[in-house]
Amino acid sequence: MPDRRRRIIDAARGLVPADRVFSNATLFNPFSCAWEQASLAVTDGIVVGIGDYRGITDHDLHGAQIVPGLIDAHVHIESSLLTPKEYTRLVATHGTTTVIADPHEIANVAGVAGIEFMMREARDTPIDILFMLPSCVPATPRDVGGAVLTASDLAGFIGRAGVLGIGEVMNVTGVLAQDQEILEKIALAPLVDGHAPLLSGADLNAYTLSGMQSDHECIRREEAEEKLRRGMYIFLREGSTERNIRDLAGIVTPCTAPRCCFATDDCHADMLAADGHIDNCVRTAIAAGLEPEIALRMATLSAAERFRLFDRGALAPGRLADFCVIDDCRTFSVKATFKRGVAIGSLPPRPAAWTPHPFACTAPDRDTVRISGSGIARVIGIVPHQIITESLQFDLDAQKIPDLDRDILKVVVCNRYGTGACGVGLVHGFGFSCGAIASSVAHDAHNLIAVGTSDAEILRAITDVIRMQGGMAAVAGKERVSLPLDCGGLMSTLPYPDVVQRLAALHAVTRRWGGIEDPFMNLSFLSLTVIPSLRITDRGIFDVAKFSDVPLFS
Amino acid sequence: MPDRRRRIIDAARGLVPADRVFSNATLFNPFSCAWEQASLAVTDGIVVGIGDYRGITDHDLHGAQIVPGLIDAHVHIESSLLTPKEYTRLVATHGTTTVIADPHEIANVAGVAGIEFMMREARDTPIDILFMLPSCVPATPRDVGGAVLTASDLAGFIGRAGVLGIGEVMNVTGVLAQDQEILEKIALAPLVDGHAPLLSGADLNAYTLSGMQSDHECIRREEAEEKLRRGMYIFLREGSTERNIRDLAGIVTPCTAPRCCFATDDCHADMLAADGHIDNCVRTAIAAGLEPEIALRMATLSAAERFRLFDRGALAPGRLADFCVIDDCRTFSVKATFKRGVAIGSLPPRPAAWTPHPFACTAPDRDTVRISGSGIARVIGIVPHQIITESLQFDLDAQKIPDLDRDILKVVVCNRYGTGACGVGLVHGFGFSCGAIASSVAHDAHNLIAVGTSDAEILRAITDVIRMQGGMAAVAGKERVSLPLDCGGLMSTLPYPDVVQRLAALHAVTRRWGGIEDPFMNLSFLSLTVIPSLRITDRGIFDVAKFSDVPLFS
Repeated sequence: MPDRRRRIIDAARGLVPADRVFSNATLFNPFSCAWEQASLAVTDGIVVGIGDYRGITDHDLHGAQIVPGLIDAHVHIESSLLTPKEYTRLVATHGTTTVIADPHEIANVAGVAGIEFMMREARDTPIDILFMLPSCVPATPRDVGGAVLTASDLAGFIGRAGVLGIGEVMNVTGVLAQDQEILEKIALAPLVDGHAPLLSGADLNAYTLSGMQSDHECIRREEAEEKLRRGMYIFLREGSTERNIRDLAGIVTPCTAPRCCFATDDCHADMLAADGHIDNCVRTAIAAGLEPEIALRMATLSAAERFRLFDRGALAPGRLADFCVIDDCRTFSVKATFKRGVAIGSLPPRPAAWTPHPFACTAPDRDTVRISGSGIARVIGIVPHQIITESLQFDLDAQKIPDLDRDILKVVVCNRYGTGACGVGLVHGFGFSCGAIASSVAHDAHNLIAVGTSDAEILRAITDVIRMQGGMAAVAGKERVSLPLDCGGLMSTLPYPDVVQRLAALHAVTRRWGGIEDPFMNLSFLSLTVIPSLRITDRGIFDVAKFSDVPLFS
Repeated sequence: MPDRRRRIIDAARGLVPADRVFSNATLFNPFSCAWEQASLAVTDGIVVGIGDYRGITDHDLHGAQIVPGLIDAHVHIESSLLTPKEYTRLVATHGTTTVIADPHEIANVAGVAGIEFMMREARDTPIDILFMLPSCVPATPRDVGGAVLTASDLAGFIGRAGVLGIGEVMNVTGVLAQDQEILEKIALAPLVDGHAPLLSGADLNAYTLSGMQSDHECIRREEAEEKLRRGMYIFLREGSTERNIRDLAGIVTPCTAPRCCFATDDCHADMLAADGHIDNCVRTAIAAGLEPEIALRMATLSAAERFRLFDRGALAPGRLADFCVIDDCRTFSVKATFKRGVAIGSLPPRPAAWTPHPFACTAPDRDTVRISGSGIARVIGIVPHQIITESLQFDLDAQKIPDLDRDILKVVVCNRYGTGACGVGLVHGFGFSCGAIASSVAHDAHNLIAVGTSDAEILRAITDVIRMQGGMAAVAGKERVSLPLDCGGLMSTLPYPDVVQRLAALHAVTRRWGGIEDPFMNLSFLSLTVIPSLRITDRGIFDVAKFSDVPLFS
């Protein structure tokens, strides 16, 4: 009988005082979706009992509501632009105690070394980062960035502490065609997340049958309902440009809540700081009509059970004492977050141990980004708050781009792995009246991408990003604002408040130009060839439905 | 790519016909707790799709309702008096396709060999028998029957096909005292079922914390609610004398249904034949006020998820095509049962391969069962439809037993493992006006137990059971009715209709005497020293609260 176990059980029985007792608490119980007035007793970071307890230290909560620590079911930490240590420092202030991370972005840039970096950084964070391994690096065989991860590369991570399974299988075509490599990846672990926007009917059956257990790409209620009926967990997503909760809240009932979770997927640091994290998802779901208790069930026990994490998701004997204190379940403002029974107070910034990685991008010359011709052109249409795009057609003359009246701008993608490739296309929806922005975050290959109202400004923004060896830049006339992303061109080693401030400065500039809310996030998805409809890569325009490169003029 | 997998995925996609398509079905979907009109496509025993499919064979269901195969979350098959093959032949007619069995009874009689027998017999049954290993053999250190199972005995079964975890941990005292042997057993597997009647408060917290994940012993709503809040799965039980569903149905809501299942625990073959199995639980729950869809969720997906059986519990792509066709979800009469897509038709009887086991009981003489004295006597009080007993006190004279006016009869327990020990006590509540019954089923040591209105008839009933080397007997004057239980004195090798008929004959006799509904089942629990309040063993009267033997007169 180890002493630790005896101490815990004796504390549960009330034979010895617990380490800490949180008395006069109003506890949310996700098993019953109800509240309970009691004391919460914690020893050695574990909930030992709920009831009437005394502790070595007693924290009187004066009736405050406490809920189990919130869980993000699917996130790419890289998309926050923060390193894991800074990311967790930020989301911990919002009640999050566990995130299920897919290091898909850094893996596309730096492969196995990128995943190792994230796992190393996750070791010493105030909350738990657990990993689903990136299954689709590159996203498609033609979108090779800095790495190709094989099943045997992933196999090397299986069984390591914190690795739960295989992350979003975006290669739907490969699954349906029973591609050997993707099937080998799926077979590596019992947990596999899916990613199948708009998939339906027989092909959805085949995809689910092949082992994918969740989807976080639903944007319409009918789509989510069908996937849920076929046995998939549905992650309702609220990211910087992927705002699906309002549209999907209707699928959540007391019956379906155990099959529904929240996810942020891709969320910039400024949104996390201003709007929150999973607490924001809870508030958004309540605003969309969900009962707070149902939203809380999703954010805690449902997410824990989806990932078979039976040690958390509820404040019950034997589970981790992860919880947050809130003001009121309807307004849901997080007052304090506790991990293993200890308050996560204000923490100092934590620099990341990043090994510099080559950023081999050269700026294109003016001729390379020049376009010519006229007629019916393919134009990428941005959909507000969504990562899908529309495949638009405009009758236009390339000489007359930018067409500010019709909001048609030039978009440029430059390979950043030394090939020198450069693709040029057109995009509708950014709303800029002047200026250009560029970024080294461009899913999934993370080439350098830029959009703007003049070739000169586009090229200067690109040059600024290259000078930083990765980052974000906004250029208009003499005004230049930037954020360096020195970790692989994806994440900044700056403390999170600095990143938030720099992002705010970038957004202040683009807002002044008349731009949409978070143009860098929309820009970052314009290269993502696995999401409908029209995309831009370093080869040029890509039609997702045809799954092939297409010319500018049809 | 194995051919089997390709065939299944191609069928899901509709590229090739499925093996069997069940068209025009009204399918119950436990993820949404709703019904869906569609065709169900099955290949190789697996659900490949729901939707619009064509099959090599097509079964038109003409709109009939079909539900996923029903699951019994906790059963001692031995209590049916049938061997596994005959048991499954019977319950399959009631829509059951999976039972979670704890071979606790035969293990008390025959140890490891008894478990091996059950596992061997389970190999070739029409439905799946999965096992939770008996954790408490004997039930208490003083109630040794035919075997003592150590943690290392159980360890030999871990990892074998069909073994899920550790069965009901009845030794609550041992857990709370952190007894090394029981903790070693709990640590053997991630799934552990609990058994903690009336446990509450701090000790319930400690018991749950120690790893017990379920309870099927709740009889009152408050008890079940507390256990559910502490994270336990609650199995609502409906056995021959353990009828808890009506009292507990109130705990089940759409929110709690995922944490609630049905179990039969101990159910005689005649009840299974007349009332049904889990289908009867569903009907009983509906009669108690549950919506049919909530009861069905419990009977299917909730039970599958509790046991982490992600391959069943719903008719969704990739899961087993286990289901039953019903008339209507409110009346819930099972018309046909399908296992892996194939109808379980009428099956021939299947003899068990039982290796005879010694039945070393000798009949006591008249002097041994004689009692004397007068004053306040401890009398076991039967509680209708429950396995708990009351600890009653009557002012009486032993010479005047039986006291038919006050319904106080003599109860006798004879050791059947060769010690010759014999205990005598008094019991209230059988209601017999004449006659005696005896049985070799007496939880958990399974000594020979008898109750009756005269010493002569009690001894003749005992003699009859000994002559059969195990069985059940009813004796009144010259009338003698019996059922041989030739598998360890617990199960009969007869086909189930014969066992049902013999049980019916026994019950017809006891009913004629004015007896309670299923006196053999109540009798079988009178020796169970882990359930409150008063019991009888081969040592005499046992007080569960004091956990010690006590004299007849206080």
